[in-house]
Amino acid sequence: MKSVGIVSSQTLHVSTPLNMVCGSVLPEYDIAYETYGSLDAEKSNAILICHALSGHQHVAGFHEGNKNPGWWDDYIGPGKVIDTNQFFVVCSNNLGGCHGSSGPASTNPETGKVYGPDFPIVTCKDWVNSQNELRQHLGIDAWSAIIGGSMGGMQVMQWAIDFPDKIKHAIVIASAPKLSAQNIAFNEVARRAIMTDPEFHDGRFIEAGTTPKRGLALARMLGHLTYLSDDLMGTKFGRELREGKLNYNFEVEFQVESYLRYQGEKFATKQNFDANTYLLMTKALDYFDPASEFDDDLTKALSSATAKFLVIAFTTDWRFSPERSHEIVKALLDNDADVSYAEIESSHGHDAFLLPNEHYEEVFRTYLSQVVQKDLTAKGEQDV
Amino acid sequence: MKSVGIVSSQTLHVSTPLNMVCGSVLPEYDIAYETYGSLDAEKSNAILICHALSGHQHVAGFHEGNKNPGWWDDYIGPGKVIDTNQFFVVCSNNLGGCHGSSGPASTNPETGKVYGPDFPIVTCKDWVNSQNELRQHLGIDAWSAIIGGSMGGMQVMQWAIDFPDKIKHAIVIASAPKLSAQNIAFNEVARRAIMTDPEFHDGRFIEAGTTPKRGLALARMLGHLTYLSDDLMGTKFGRELREGKLNYNFEVEFQVESYLRYQGEKFATKQNFDANTYLLMTKALDYFDPASEFDDDLTKALSSATAKFLVIAFTTDWRFSPERSHEIVKALLDNDADVSYAEIESSHGHDAFLLPNEHYEEVFRTYLSQVVQKDLTAKGEQDV
Repeated sequence: MKSVGIVSSQTLHVSTPLNMVCGSVLPEYDIAYETYGSLDAEKSNAILICHALSGHQHVAGFHEGNKNPGWWDDYIGPGKVIDTNQFFVVCSNNLGGCHGSSGPASTNPETGKVYGPDFPIVTCKDWVNSQNELRQHLGIDAWSAIIGGSMGGMQVMQWAIDFPDKIKHAIVIASAPKLSAQNIAFNEVARRAIMTDPEFHDGRFIEAGTTPKRGLALARMLGHLTYLSDDLMGTKFGRELREGKLNYNFEVEFQVESYLRYQGEKFATKQNFDANTYLLMTKALDYFDPASEFDDDLTKALSSATAKFLVIAFTTDWRFSPERSHEIVKALLDNDADVSYAEIESSHGHDAFLLPNEHYEEVFRTYLSQVVQKDLTAKGEQDV
Repeated sequence: MKSVGIVSSQTLHVSTPLNMVCGSVLPEYDIAYETYGSLDAEKSNAILICHALSGHQHVAGFHEGNKNPGWWDDYIGPGKVIDTNQFFVVCSNNLGGCHGSSGPASTNPETGKVYGPDFPIVTCKDWVNSQNELRQHLGIDAWSAIIGGSMGGMQVMQWAIDFPDKIKHAIVIASAPKLSAQNIAFNEVARRAIMTDPEFHDGRFIEAGTTPKRGLALARMLGHLTYLSDDLMGTKFGRELREGKLNYNFEVEFQVESYLRYQGEKFATKQNFDANTYLLMTKALDYFDPASEFDDDLTKALSSATAKFLVIAFTTDWRFSPERSHEIVKALLDNDADVSYAEIESSHGHDAFLLPNEHYEEVFRTYLSQVVQKDLTAKGEQDV
């Protein structure tokens, strides 16, 4: 299938101050984003993609001179599941990110210095508010659909709760209504790895001319460990030895060690992910808990939502297991919401939401084709 | 129930060189151990306890002036499950450890310097061989039983394979016949945390007058994460906040963070666990795979075993799940071995093997009472 081709990021500078959940006010900020496909005359075919922990706005196509496609290129393009012949697809880098949106690695316009640890703590609600500025900028009245996996799914739920009339379809994939204690614990170990790295310099590592790459690599290794299922790791690596024999030393011996070290180092050096962004993103995950404002009642939290929902979970995902999706589905059903749920057989653990999978694609495609048809019908009815 | 009271460790100096699996020869070494109860005249009532990753020989009773009991005091003592009125209980610190047995923190008698990273890589087989020296020293012909949880259970299996006539009963608790790729991956992240700590100094941190305590604390946090079940963490901590409210900063906010940081710091500073020992122990876990010498056939590997087995697993243990114990049981049954298996309901994850639990204790006690009776019957038969 065809790709959306060569794409480039754009930046929206927002001058409306953002009142953040943490109490800070961000007087102005940038939102980096990409779009694929064309907005129709009625501005009714827009889809917002929300990214996960280490994601960014480059979700499909290729950047000039770079042969790596966007992170969800398998699913977005002409004739693909999220069909850019039909939809105008938008993806923005979350506020606090390190791919063009204002974040800890950006210059604070008030001081002329890098924000570093002074960038305010962001939450899911702040992201949705800033994405809403982008929506207005693009002249979209309501998103035809908002789609996100993992942390992206949390933003979808937040949109449905906070801006019910701005989202028609909510597609929540491999997500959870809040982190479990174990989820928080994994995040905390990752944060400690970064923050106890002597190169962290209390978050002012850019000013110090360094990066806490050891800590960041550890955080990423740990992340990867939780994205893959035990089964898949067994199938993919088992106890296979890198050099075919045991060496009895602390060099890489098992293939799984090699894979994890590579992932960690790539993230910390080649991709040069900002360590403060990693901290912020994990914190936003920890904080996400829409029910907390509604007596810990998720049903009440979701009672304002009017979007139709598609919730998808994967059988071997132990980071956000199907049980976590059941919680979302149950709360929606308690509200008599229109909700479809699919539990997809996959050996790929949490990573499955990013990977090709026939059943997943079919469910996804069928749902989106109804989105188009319903919208066309709705338009037709209006015409009559 | 009564405790075994005040106890102290003893040290056996072994002058017989140890030919290690890694190819090194250890010309002489110390084994630190403790004993509780009395060896009977026939020297037939001895039980060996094998410790896990961060364990040591102080398994029951109290050291003079220290109010913390041994790590399995709940289970060992007069009238307790492992009844010191009936059994002579022995526990030794594994070779490579840091509680009195020769290890990386000991002085190399050949150089007069601390071993540090020069201490040879130890394996489960090496432990069993060195424990066999202790057996001979104590004048025990055969252990009435060898008991171990987690890494301890691996030593029990190794004993049953390597010295079938020296072990009558093998009690393997919350263990596995080899690590999975995911298990190895967790160990690798822990090792990277230690080895990338700038205070590690290529393992020569003692000579450098420091310790890689940041890395060690991270390794321990990660360990704890895998010892507890997701459910238990939920029940124990949930999303409870330490100060009752969110602070929107990177200080400890959730109780689970507080718990993990405390565990990590205690291990790395107060308990002053040797980082090189931690590395060695995780490597020995990775290497354990008795089937590898038998065409990857666990049944063949265990075919030499003549001991009677009790295998115990815990329902919420995701580090070494019941499925891993099933592999052991199946291989034993394929050999027509005498094996009992109990799967104990517990919410405590891998930690369950150390904690009070009525069903677990009952299974354990019943089995050991049969050990005593069978031994008495055997003696009676011989007398006739």
